Amino acid sequence: MDDTEFTDYLRQKRELIDSNLDRLLPPENEAPPIIHRAMRYSILAAAKRIRPILCLAACRAVGGDEADAVAPACALELIHTYSLIHDDLPIMDDDDFRRGIPTSHKVFGEGTAILAGDAILSLAFEIIARDEKITDWQCRRLVEELGRAAGSRGLVGGQQADLESQGKKVSAQKVEYIHSRKTGALITAAVRCGAIAGKAAAEQLDALTDYGEKIGLAFQIKDDLLDIQGLEEKLGKATRQDEKLNKATYPAILGLEKSRLILRELLEEALEKLSIFGTEADPLRSIARFIGEREA
Amino acid sequence: MDDTEFTDYLRQKRELIDSNLDRLLPPENEAPPIIHRAMRYSILAAAKRIRPILCLAACRAVGGDEADAVAPACALELIHTYSLIHDDLPIMDDDDFRRGIPTSHKVFGEGTAILAGDAILSLAFEIIARDEKITDWQCRRLVEELGRAAGSRGLVGGQQADLESQGKKVSAQKVEYIHSRKTGALITAAVRCGAIAGKAAAEQLDALTDYGEKIGLAFQIKDDLLDIQGLEEKLGKATRQDEKLNKATYPAILGLEKSRLILRELLEEALEKLSIFGTEADPLRSIARFIGEREA
Repeated sequence: MDDTEFTDYLRQKRELIDSNLDRLLPPENEAPPIIHRAMRYSILAAAKRIRPILCLAACRAVGGDEADAVAPACALELIHTYSLIHDDLPIMDDDDFRRGIPTSHKVFGEGTAILAGDAILSLAFEIIARDEKITDWQCRRLVEELGRAAGSRGLVGGQQADLESQGKKVSAQKVEYIHSRKTGALITAAVRCGAIAGKAAAEQLDALTDYGEKIGLAFQIKDDLLDIQGLEEKLGKATRQDEKLNKATYPAILGLEKSRLILRELLEEALEKLSIFGTEADPLRSIARFIGEREA
Repeated sequence: MDDTEFTDYLRQKRELIDSNLDRLLPPENEAPPIIHRAMRYSILAAAKRIRPILCLAACRAVGGDEADAVAPACALELIHTYSLIHDDLPIMDDDDFRRGIPTSHKVFGEGTAILAGDAILSLAFEIIARDEKITDWQCRRLVEELGRAAGSRGLVGGQQADLESQGKKVSAQKVEYIHSRKTGALITAAVRCGAIAGKAAAEQLDALTDYGEKIGLAFQIKDDLLDIQGLEEKLGKATRQDEKLNKATYPAILGLEKSRLILRELLEEALEKLSIFGTEADPLRSIARFIGEREA
């Protein structure tokens, strides 16, 4: 897959996910309208859709029918979006903008933002159960994966550990703990859900799980690096150090050079894990490279 | 079932649910410990466990093995408890006490309370998928039921409509809309999940759905009446009227007498719906009577 092919691939899959999310969400005018407007506002905002695309690509890699992975792919984006809505609340990270538009609580108020997140999380599980393309057995496996990835041992556990570490000096081990849960759990689940939807053999599922863990961590390290590069341009070097010292990021703990080295190594290892697959895993290979090279 | 037998029944089933909730929750010392302490704090507080008991009783009514209904019964209590944690937040109903102890956000802070609720909701779906007693087909049906009942067309939709109606004069129709979602959806789901776990025939499921809808509404009307009786004792009659005029309750809209009449009628209709069942539905019959007679 060359750059043009991959850019086309990303755009096509993003459109596929966007149109299915639109279809799966309750209509905006259904009562009570404000909750449905709030759900649609956050979910249909322009986004990269990395987790759903990983799910589709993993399904293809194991020789599955991509259509079988659309429902879990959408469920992953729902869970990701609900977690952003709750993380952005004033009592959490207190963010005013997300995906280029004001955050949910800024537009709808905190109460509705909490409820919209809650409803989106429930909807993620419901759409898996209602999808006619997957078997009962796949439904069960997918619900288990998503429940674990979203819960206190995954996403929420990472967010809680992050909350607790704010303003404290944390170890590299703690940073990895937070990252592996806050970002890694759902990215690994994305790849695993795609493999399950594609009826992967055990060996394929194992390889893709390893791939998912590597790119999940790489994705977060790249996020941290982009954040610093952004700050460098805006605020200069000295301020950056102060800003970052107490934040649980790889560059803050290990420095820029070491972080970049780990990022490269993780992506090489991720590609190595795909060696049992043929060209059907090319989108996954391109995604790994994209994670290292992305500018935003 | 006489009163003593029914009291024993409720105690036994409550203990069964309590011990299974304890087993299904992550241990308190598992990292990150604060989230697990918060989850256990709210879920293991002393409570009536009406929803899980309805689930067990419905499973028995259709001739099923009660053990098959334990996981969905616990999932229902998890969903109920998560909704209480979020409803009690300062930005929502701002309650300081729940189940006789300080609310989650009072003990753990608002951020952790939101996250604990989130993790509990995910766990509800995960325990269904992990339960070995139910088949893949039952798992799918149960996830669909719980997702719909918990989401924007159920519990969350009711809470949103309630949020929007606070301080406004609302119609009897609106009160029923709010009640049927905020309380009714999960009570009906409790009965339906028990029926699904017990492999109910279509006719049995239909009858139990009607029963669930009737007692769900009756349960909320009784709640409203108990609230007023409490106020009557404490504040006298004139104040009560002012307090209640703008609240979305049956007594406020229709008056005490009419509300009591509707309550009685609903419970009679609920019992009538059970006429296709034999003595195996006696716990469901006793629960309907208990809803009308309870003092707290």
